[in-house]
Amino acid sequence: MKILFRNAKILDLTKEKGYFCGSVVVEEDLITYVGEKEPRMAVDKVIDVQGNILMPGFVNAHAHTPMTLLRGAKDDCCLDTWLNEGVWPLEAKMTNEDVYWGQMLGIAEYVRAGITTFDDFYFHYDGMCRAINKAGIRARFCVAVSISSPPNANFDKELEDNYELVKKLTNPKLVNIVATAHAIYTISEEKFFALLKFANKNNLSLSLHLSETLKEVGDCTQKNNGLTPPAYIEQLGMLDRPCLCYHCVHMDKDDLQILADYNASVATCPSSNLKLASGIAPIYAMQNKGLNIAIGTDGAASNNSLDMFKEMFLVATLSKVNIYDASVVSARQVLQMATVNGAKALDINSGEIKVGKNADIILVSLQEPHMQPQDNIISNLVYSAKSSDVYFTMVGGKVLYENGKYNIGEDIETIYKKAEDIRKRLMS
Amino acid sequence: MKILFRNAKILDLTKEKGYFCGSVVVEEDLITYVGEKEPRMAVDKVIDVQGNILMPGFVNAHAHTPMTLLRGAKDDCCLDTWLNEGVWPLEAKMTNEDVYWGQMLGIAEYVRAGITTFDDFYFHYDGMCRAINKAGIRARFCVAVSISSPPNANFDKELEDNYELVKKLTNPKLVNIVATAHAIYTISEEKFFALLKFANKNNLSLSLHLSETLKEVGDCTQKNNGLTPPAYIEQLGMLDRPCLCYHCVHMDKDDLQILADYNASVATCPSSNLKLASGIAPIYAMQNKGLNIAIGTDGAASNNSLDMFKEMFLVATLSKVNIYDASVVSARQVLQMATVNGAKALDINSGEIKVGKNADIILVSLQEPHMQPQDNIISNLVYSAKSSDVYFTMVGGKVLYENGKYNIGEDIETIYKKAEDIRKRLMS
Repeated sequence: MKILFRNAKILDLTKEKGYFCGSVVVEEDLITYVGEKEPRMAVDKVIDVQGNILMPGFVNAHAHTPMTLLRGAKDDCCLDTWLNEGVWPLEAKMTNEDVYWGQMLGIAEYVRAGITTFDDFYFHYDGMCRAINKAGIRARFCVAVSISSPPNANFDKELEDNYELVKKLTNPKLVNIVATAHAIYTISEEKFFALLKFANKNNLSLSLHLSETLKEVGDCTQKNNGLTPPAYIEQLGMLDRPCLCYHCVHMDKDDLQILADYNASVATCPSSNLKLASGIAPIYAMQNKGLNIAIGTDGAASNNSLDMFKEMFLVATLSKVNIYDASVVSARQVLQMATVNGAKALDINSGEIKVGKNADIILVSLQEPHMQPQDNIISNLVYSAKSSDVYFTMVGGKVLYENGKYNIGEDIETIYKKAEDIRKRLMS
Repeated sequence: MKILFRNAKILDLTKEKGYFCGSVVVEEDLITYVGEKEPRMAVDKVIDVQGNILMPGFVNAHAHTPMTLLRGAKDDCCLDTWLNEGVWPLEAKMTNEDVYWGQMLGIAEYVRAGITTFDDFYFHYDGMCRAINKAGIRARFCVAVSISSPPNANFDKELEDNYELVKKLTNPKLVNIVATAHAIYTISEEKFFALLKFANKNNLSLSLHLSETLKEVGDCTQKNNGLTPPAYIEQLGMLDRPCLCYHCVHMDKDDLQILADYNASVATCPSSNLKLASGIAPIYAMQNKGLNIAIGTDGAASNNSLDMFKEMFLVATLSKVNIYDASVVSARQVLQMATVNGAKALDINSGEIKVGKNADIILVSLQEPHMQPQDNIISNLVYSAKSSDVYFTMVGGKVLYENGKYNIGEDIETIYKKAEDIRKRLMS
């Protein structure tokens, strides 16, 4: 299958205006041509982009996708209360089947909003994997030791079993796997060491929530002879392999230097950090340390929607207000975080419109009032665009969303109905 | 003309769930029936809301509508630089005709996003009024002494002439008028006194930008024997009439007490305050003082889109992170600010779905993935809805937007083309 996109404004952050007008060809799951001229070749399908934007799909660097089921279930409380009184009691009632439908609802929200890949950390792997596989979307799957596994459990076996299950249920062309610890305040040292052993054995990258709240930082330094969370995980050995750190809200220069020394990546999740009153991440300081900064939505129970446009606006503007300097963290830098940096953080061959890259492509309409005038497209994409401007989402050459039609393996109305029913049961 | 809306989730913030299911009847420009049962009466038109949300249109309590022309023209700088190096030189090239089309583009963005009324402060009143009048939208129009009027000009005459012009060009059923000073750092005391005289004579409310940046507060206290901006305008007499203060970012408890003592209203504009790195407004402290807090978008050159959903999300979540307390400023309170409080601040008979109120009504779709599950509609409206969920906007009984069709007196493609051409000329 060969598809030609013509008459597109193709996002290219190396250009002065941030884009150029031209054509793109996709063959099977890869981009095989990008250029100003339209190539002379026989194709199976032509898509006229009509002067709208063609860009890489967003890479969501941190998510708990099935938490769409809990959207709005516990608002207006801090992370600690939210977990202990809101999320965990509800999650205790969830089944694999529930998680399948929550995952499907999240995937619908992703493709509607131009997110083509997500780093996904949750539980009931069977339900998650079946949905990811059926939808045909790209993901990085977090294999973890469960928070609730008792101290005397066989963590090595739990991890290997989970790993085998995920490999069995997913397509390796679309899903890669990372070894994940929830956080230092939920995972014992024994579990951390089991995870490291597992990651080393299977040559996997690592990830964890890190320095999300002041409470986490305070508790960690008190418990561990003054070691901050980054210093503590450095000591554990978590940074010896490529590591993606979610949140990183409360970090001083020394903390950031530790992450930089090990080439760790950061997934900043601003809307969740605001809503849980966790804080504002020091993005400008991270940039100055040369860290690879990606952007995540976090789960829809905390933020409460899976929208990288919202997150991009927040990363740029919160970074400015945080240090009272409006000149820092530009729209162009933020677009890079949401695409190129995300792909780097998740170790996938996407995030740019270039020959040889995965055909993870979205089309963004310029037809709404908030996108006029079109003099500064990069600014419009970050500061005024909405996820509803996305009208076409392709992952690995397959169209998953187009103008209100979903192609993710389940009927959209069925997904809504199932999610509604499950939510009712969980809340009862 | 009698219109019946049936099968609607009608927003009512006094109800436990924040809404009830029922019908609404509009006759001419007013709401004449609201109830759970469908009334038996002959009507001219029936609109089946199909279980979606029917709610009051948003009241945008602070705007510079024609600045849509300058969207993205000067990003990533602070207010001072933005005004002096970005906005003012470009505005110097603007004509009445330019402002007409900028106003039209802004109105298109408003009705698309469910904004039915806006407090509007700009210049070239002729162009502004013609667009407002032609579109048939509701507005509160700011009549001001120009920043650029020289010290020896006849301010009294300027104000009276402007007032007569606006009255002549607008429909009093849709447009009311407020006497506005730009800010204490741009308007001389002579101009303030002329404005007060004008307001007293014509029995008008007042408004101004206040305590937007630390620079404004610092300069004011230095110049005026330690008086902060609220103390300074109190001394001038600006608070002796009903006054709407835009921004109010940097205010301590004493400042807020001054505004509270005079029953002044506040229009908070969070996205603009973030993007210009001005700061985060102390909303929770304002609530504790009993202030009437409304929400504004500010102009699209600073924020960069006219979207009350974005602002609502920001008011709730920034207020939490600002004092590290996620329990403050709930979704319900923020919805009240964006509707009821806005109507109070602008002195209009809108903002609620009640018999006798203006028929300023919007319909918000619950059909997108980010609005599922529908267990907590109030939370969904503030934390996950987008302005694109609005599919129908009525002002004073007249439908101005419905499912992609604009009914604002000019063709949408013509508006886009004009805005593009004007922007090109301004930037050249």
